[in-house]
Amino acid sequence: MAGNTFGSFFKLTTFGESHGNAIGGIIDGCPAGLILNFDDIQKEMQRRKPGQSKIVTQRKEEDKVEFLSGIFEGKTTGAPIGFVIKNTNQKSKDYSHNKDVYRPSHADYTYDKKYGIRDYRGGGRSSARETANWVVGGAVAKQLINDINIYAFVSSVGDIFLDKPYQKLDFTKTETNDVRCPDDATAQKMEEYIKQIKKDGDTVGGTITCVIKNVPVGLGEPVFDKLHARLGQAMLTINAVKGFEFGSGFCGARMKGSEHNDIFQQNGTTNTNLSGGIQGGISNGMDIYFRVAFKPVATIMQKQDTIDSAGNKAEIQGKGRHDPCVVPRAVPIVEAMAALVLADFYLIHNISKV
Amino acid sequence: MAGNTFGSFFKLTTFGESHGNAIGGIIDGCPAGLILNFDDIQKEMQRRKPGQSKIVTQRKEEDKVEFLSGIFEGKTTGAPIGFVIKNTNQKSKDYSHNKDVYRPSHADYTYDKKYGIRDYRGGGRSSARETANWVVGGAVAKQLINDINIYAFVSSVGDIFLDKPYQKLDFTKTETNDVRCPDDATAQKMEEYIKQIKKDGDTVGGTITCVIKNVPVGLGEPVFDKLHARLGQAMLTINAVKGFEFGSGFCGARMKGSEHNDIFQQNGTTNTNLSGGIQGGISNGMDIYFRVAFKPVATIMQKQDTIDSAGNKAEIQGKGRHDPCVVPRAVPIVEAMAALVLADFYLIHNISKV
Amino acid sequence: MAGNTFGSFFKLTTFGESHGNAIGGIIDGCPAGLILNFDDIQKEMQRRKPGQSKIVTQRKEEDKVEFLSGIFEGKTTGAPIGFVIKNTNQKSKDYSHNKDVYRPSHADYTYDKKYGIRDYRGGGRSSARETANWVVGGAVAKQLINDINIYAFVSSVGDIFLDKPYQKLDFTKTETNDVRCPDDATAQKMEEYIKQIKKDGDTVGGTITCVIKNVPVGLGEPVFDKLHARLGQAMLTINAVKGFEFGSGFCGARMKGSEHNDIFQQNGTTNTNLSGGIQGGISNGMDIYFRVAFKPVATIMQKQDTIDSAGNKAEIQGKGRHDPCVVPRAVPIVEAMAALVLADFYLIHNISKV
Amino acid sequence: MAGNTFGSFFKLTTFGESHGNAIGGIIDGCPAGLILNFDDIQKEMQRRKPGQSKIVTQRKEEDKVEFLSGIFEGKTTGAPIGFVIKNTNQKSKDYSHNKDVYRPSHADYTYDKKYGIRDYRGGGRSSARETANWVVGGAVAKQLINDINIYAFVSSVGDIFLDKPYQKLDFTKTETNDVRCPDDATAQKMEEYIKQIKKDGDTVGGTITCVIKNVPVGLGEPVFDKLHARLGQAMLTINAVKGFEFGSGFCGARMKGSEHNDIFQQNGTTNTNLSGGIQGGISNGMDIYFRVAFKPVATIMQKQDTIDSAGNKAEIQGKGRHDPCVVPRAVPIVEAMAALVLADFYLIHNISKV
Repeated sequence: MAGNTFGSFFKLTTFGESHGNAIGGIIDGCPAGLILNFDDIQKEMQRRKPGQSKIVTQRKEEDKVEFLSGIFEGKTTGAPIGFVIKNTNQKSKDYSHNKDVYRPSHADYTYDKKYGIRDYRGGGRSSARETANWVVGGAVAKQLINDINIYAFVSSVGDIFLDKPYQKLDFTKTETNDVRCPDDATAQKMEEYIKQIKKDGDTVGGTITCVIKNVPVGLGEPVFDKLHARLGQAMLTINAVKGFEFGSGFCGARMKGSEHNDIFQQNGTTNTNLSGGIQGGISNGMDIYFRVAFKPVATIMQKQDTIDSAGNKAEIQGKGRHDPCVVPRAVPIVEAMAALVLADFYLIHNISKV
Repeated sequence: MAGNTFGSFFKLTTFGESHGNAIGGIIDGCPAGLILNFDDIQKEMQRRKPGQSKIVTQRKEEDKVEFLSGIFEGKTTGAPIGFVIKNTNQKSKDYSHNKDVYRPSHADYTYDKKYGIRDYRGGGRSSARETANWVVGGAVAKQLINDINIYAFVSSVGDIFLDKPYQKLDFTKTETNDVRCPDDATAQKMEEYIKQIKKDGDTVGGTITCVIKNVPVGLGEPVFDKLHARLGQAMLTINAVKGFEFGSGFCGARMKGSEHNDIFQQNGTTNTNLSGGIQGGISNGMDIYFRVAFKPVATIMQKQDTIDSAGNKAEIQGKGRHDPCVVPRAVPIVEAMAALVLADFYLIHNISKV
Repeated sequence: MAGNTFGSFFKLTTFGESHGNAIGGIIDGCPAGLILNFDDIQKEMQRRKPGQSKIVTQRKEEDKVEFLSGIFEGKTTGAPIGFVIKNTNQKSKDYSHNKDVYRPSHADYTYDKKYGIRDYRGGGRSSARETANWVVGGAVAKQLINDINIYAFVSSVGDIFLDKPYQKLDFTKTETNDVRCPDDATAQKMEEYIKQIKKDGDTVGGTITCVIKNVPVGLGEPVFDKLHARLGQAMLTINAVKGFEFGSGFCGARMKGSEHNDIFQQNGTTNTNLSGGIQGGISNGMDIYFRVAFKPVATIMQKQDTIDSAGNKAEIQGKGRHDPCVVPRAVPIVEAMAALVLADFYLIHNISKV
Repeated sequence: MAGNTFGSFFKLTTFGESHGNAIGGIIDGCPAGLILNFDDIQKEMQRRKPGQSKIVTQRKEEDKVEFLSGIFEGKTTGAPIGFVIKNTNQKSKDYSHNKDVYRPSHADYTYDKKYGIRDYRGGGRSSARETANWVVGGAVAKQLINDINIYAFVSSVGDIFLDKPYQKLDFTKTETNDVRCPDDATAQKMEEYIKQIKKDGDTVGGTITCVIKNVPVGLGEPVFDKLHARLGQAMLTINAVKGFEFGSGFCGARMKGSEHNDIFQQNGTTNTNLSGGIQGGISNGMDIYFRVAFKPVATIMQKQDTIDSAGNKAEIQGKGRHDPCVVPRAVPIVEAMAALVLADFYLIHNISKV
């Protein structure tokens, strides 16, 4: 089915293109009686929005969420929560040069071939503008599962890696620098590197690590909706993501069972946590942690060869205002998608036994 | 919702535990008129089944699929295809020692906590026995999309990596050795290593790479059901999987845009394929390729400390017949899950434009 | 799951309450490339809207649909179609007297008990205002299946029945009178009766018959999503509906098989059509026809005993602007819901055989 | 999507044709820890099965349910419950005459046209044999919601109506006669009539009324999954059903609001119950009651004109063992489908508020 709904019970359905009048969505399945803190929702929007620092795109979007339904006197009513976010900064002229030309490593070509028609203004539906909707959904989800703490942060930019284990990090530092890396020294290196990349008219990839604490035991629905499988789908849904690993991840594939097994303590916790907080697709109460790989942004300020829709050779050069590195702004998106997954399983878990 | 259905239109719903009388499933949404080759389906079962070589578990399961409906005179009728696979080799006594003891890095603890009850005979629902159902579904899916070629193979075992690019491999060699690595020299090293690991009573992880050729342009349903997001979910659903990457994957996160972008040729193909055959969540006609990380099997033939369900200290040692390395037998499972994803999107794609 | 999505592939998800700022929805799964006629959509809105004649509520709602996405240069793009309809005439003061009092035969009591909170302004989510969203979805659906003709009309008001068989009716007359009955003489009687009922401060029920012509053979998905079962669900979803019958309906339950069977002609059509155009849950190409029963509107302009939320006795009297009879305005709603069902099955049918 | 799954959380997915080796299904979403009474399940099967009395088909089916998974030591485990029912009495030769001939008012023609292939042995997937699966699902559902009491009974056969209000009936009498009408005198008349009809080689329609007592307030998910809309879909799914009405039903469409409104008592119950226990799509705690119309069975023992698949004229006469009237055996099916709907909403309701 056309894939614009995420979740099975707590569901987010979205619409919108980068250059329409508005984007928005509907949150269905949010239980009644939840007191919403609108400031906290808007704060999440600010974390994602363009123009927030010197190392991100200088586009200006107000990104003000307007809730239209499902809330009465500050509380959810059990009715679907409709919301819109106006697109205040769309400048269609900026994009008219894309009408017939396929930008390399963008979705122009595939959308054209799949649908036979393409809203060529700035990526249309394939634009990361859509992720603003996800942050709204995730912000509501976070308030539903507010005992669970979700901490995402930038763990690498290009070849600059944050090489401390997450247990040694102070997550309150994540928001203290523009790159959203909770280690000051590393953050500074990353920031300088991104500035250089930007000056070069180039872009660079990176990774985000996400740690989730205080997760109840029992979330996840085997065999197909395992907690990590849904988290993986959620992360791979984010624009530019190329990989996902949780717990020991790809390193675990090099290990022996005698090294990898997490031995229980008497209270049911484990000495190690190579499992990443999930066993058999169900949370075991230990920290969940995973890592997400983002490719470099495809729009670069350098000339590239390409073709047009008629198959003629063409040349293209990024214009306007683009992110040199997507990971700083993707941190709240990773958290939002994780929150959507957890909220969904959190609700469903309540009806898994008599 | 309880997660025993995979797919949105071409759907597989399954049931069964490792030690019940039978496992099975229902394939719904398979179009009518498909001529089924039952030998080919059974061949896929043989590729997955235990006891097929010296480096896998020596359990004996006949794994004979019995189709009960939805097929008439050799063709699908559009009605749901029900099937069962008898469990011929369950020996419940082998597992009685697991009744009250939680095996480290297995799902015993989480199932017990989530459901309040656990079929302790050999893993119950969490057993990889379930994947036999997936291979049936995948084998039918493969016949529906038989122009598309899916080639999975073992690309690493522990620290032994197959270091050739996939373009240099001859996939017809995959099935010529027990480890299912299409490079003879590497396969031999892997096989020897697995034999040593087995002798040590230990287990080891590995990776599987999957290459999909001849994919039509247009498969995938953004924004949430992107082709790679569903492939990722599918792979992460497989027992023991810890990570998924496609195209440039985690390496891509270290690159610059100027290096990473795939430049078009005039016919719409690209010079490079760091995108991995998918742009914006939609197949672009280039090869799809991805890599899946498997942790070492948790059951080892060595003594391990653990706890019982009352929280008392206990000791456990694997008995019976287990795989020292899961990847050789997981190759057909990876292909089956990929086929399920592709068949689903293949059908849906037909109704994406007027 | 929270039930605000209708359809399986062509899907409408809605939000909104009678007295919020706006209502709206998202149409997902509409194929790309459909040229939309916006005037025709708006015309359907006019047919449903309040204040259109003397026998309906005199509330004033502009009911102007604003499309926000999924359409580019007049065509659908395959992306979700988001839309909003502003609530221009909500007067919350009119409804403040309902805050603590349960209106008889309304949903006040059940919403309060189910959700623990209720938007008491004019019915909130349970208001028939929601049906404006359905008319938008249905109007788009109608354009997708524009070879199929859907004709709903009022077939009874109270005890006044339109007693001609539908084959004798001229459906172009339906819109020529305020009551939407395609027989002038009957329409006039109905209209006079409704005016009298209104004068009495009372309300009255009625029935709508719907005839669907030119339906392709093959729509419907047995065994659970039979065409008539989905039509039935769709109709019963409409506010105030108490019953649904198709083909011979309740009369058929009094007949013998020898009278009831529809005998084939050589071209596959049938001499009679007691089946109502559906056999085994699948359209057979003959006219589909069904009848829908609507109870009298619960809000009457007479004093009624009731209780408040604390369980105290109370008295209530309808105020403001309500319909004395719901069926004239429900005609386009019946058509819209039928169109949504048909469009969904129409798309799915394309992938039911290889 | 192909429609072989019923329910949103408590889900039944089925397979099987009348003349395959077996039919069966998978119940997913049944909470863990439910103690199942297998005798009670089998009793429901006996109520539906052929050959149980002189007024039903004399086919012999053992209809023994075999559970294959999801149950351990007598309790549900939260894993999917797979089951099969062997077809012990299929006699394919009985049906070979149907290969190329379309039986009037059966689904032969529509299945052939939709799928391009048809299992002509006894109706294949369209056979009411499928309802045996529903009775299994419903029997499990009944045990999950065992405080709720579901009483279906035959309320008319042809023109013989049970004309007492349901409040005057003793439901313990329903199972004391072959026709399943809880009024002895009426039951006897119905039975005699059915015997006469059978002797004539004809069939006759009828209605079933269903009363559901002790329903918790709050079941149902507006706006599209209203309780009565799902009940209606469920009933219309049953073979031969032509109509559904609940509460005042079609009679309500003739009434005035001043007559129809149910006035509250101080404890929240209502003096009358024309609403049929549902307001705004949500149960209000009063009795739910509805009526279902069944057409006469299409297979009659008289000669009928028809056509074959090539469009030639043909003649057909029912052979073998068919029901002269379907309603006695449909009583447990109505209850089963009602139970499936209620169990689904019962579970979901638990997560509708924080």
